[in-house]
Amino acid sequence: MADPSLLTQLIESLRRLPGIGPKSAQRMAFHLLERDRDAGRQLARIMAAAMEQIGRCERCRTLTEHRRCQLCASPRRDAGILCVVEQPSDIVAIEQATHYDGLYFVLGGRLSPLDGIGPEELGLDRLEARFHEPALREVILAISPTVEGLATAHYIAELAQDTDLQLSRIAHGVPLGGELEFVDGSTLAHAFAGRQGL
Amino acid sequence: MADPSLLTQLIESLRRLPGIGPKSAQRMAFHLLERDRDAGRQLARIMAAAMEQIGRCERCRTLTEHRRCQLCASPRRDAGILCVVEQPSDIVAIEQATHYDGLYFVLGGRLSPLDGIGPEELGLDRLEARFHEPALREVILAISPTVEGLATAHYIAELAQDTDLQLSRIAHGVPLGGELEFVDGSTLAHAFAGRQGL
Repeated sequence: MADPSLLTQLIESLRRLPGIGPKSAQRMAFHLLERDRDAGRQLARIMAAAMEQIGRCERCRTLTEHRRCQLCASPRRDAGILCVVEQPSDIVAIEQATHYDGLYFVLGGRLSPLDGIGPEELGLDRLEARFHEPALREVILAISPTVEGLATAHYIAELAQDTDLQLSRIAHGVPLGGELEFVDGSTLAHAFAGRQGL
Repeated sequence: MADPSLLTQLIESLRRLPGIGPKSAQRMAFHLLERDRDAGRQLARIMAAAMEQIGRCERCRTLTEHRRCQLCASPRRDAGILCVVEQPSDIVAIEQATHYDGLYFVLGGRLSPLDGIGPEELGLDRLEARFHEPALREVILAISPTVEGLATAHYIAELAQDTDLQLSRIAHGVPLGGELEFVDGSTLAHAFAGRQGL
């Protein structure tokens, strides 16, 4: 019996999920095998389909199994506003927390020449093309305020310079509920520099 | 688009894993789709195989994809000792923590007449048959010290009464590192009643 048992293989594959250690993986395997094989079969089927069929939306580059994602294909979204984010998960966060009803564009990362991530990798040519679509009025940059994120936002702002688009970035500053003494120095400096009149 | 997207379905199936909430499920789905599709494909393949092929060992009733599990089939295990446990996961715990090198028998639960779990459901007829195999010398009961567990242990002890088997149960008492003031009353009473001479 040189091969590890199927149970051992199942526990090992579950461990490749992020945040799952050996004890949790074991607990999951026994739970599915002893109490909920249907959940296991369903997960296996949907996981296989998702890994093969989910690609990128041709319009906004988010994850979808269709040519266009549900948001880009929806007639209920305002095609006049475009929100630029780094990751597909950012769309989920914004959809859950805000009443934003425009469209999105997913960069898939931040400009980082040393890692070989340039404008092409982020689809900035496609984003620039969208800037020239007549329906578009406003662009919101929802990019993390890291060094690379700020550079990326700056680059995108340049692309929009010769258009009439209203361009903004989401506010950076002290988070709600954050106490000043525990906020890091750069955030506090940023919040001071970006103070707003009352 | 009435159907939920494949991504939503993937997140929902991951949520059926024990201990996984909506945020973790989402994180797992994005991680696999964006960074590790191979892990997702492997998990789907092994999960499907495990749910279909893993059954019970014909000898000890633990989970295995073979007719006999690796332990029952191993010539290196001492067939003279049999450890009776409730769940297959108990075998993993004992194998990891102890140097026990005998065989196991998995009940799959505890006697609980109100829930319709009688001797037959726990395979006690098969266990009794093993008690009469000539190679067996010793039986260790590693059953939880709950009311139902104690009743089950008592029932099994009766089955072994007309044999020459050496029968024992694992020790119950104050856990190592446990401080007396934080140990529950029944455990402490049990530990007192079961005090051992020095």
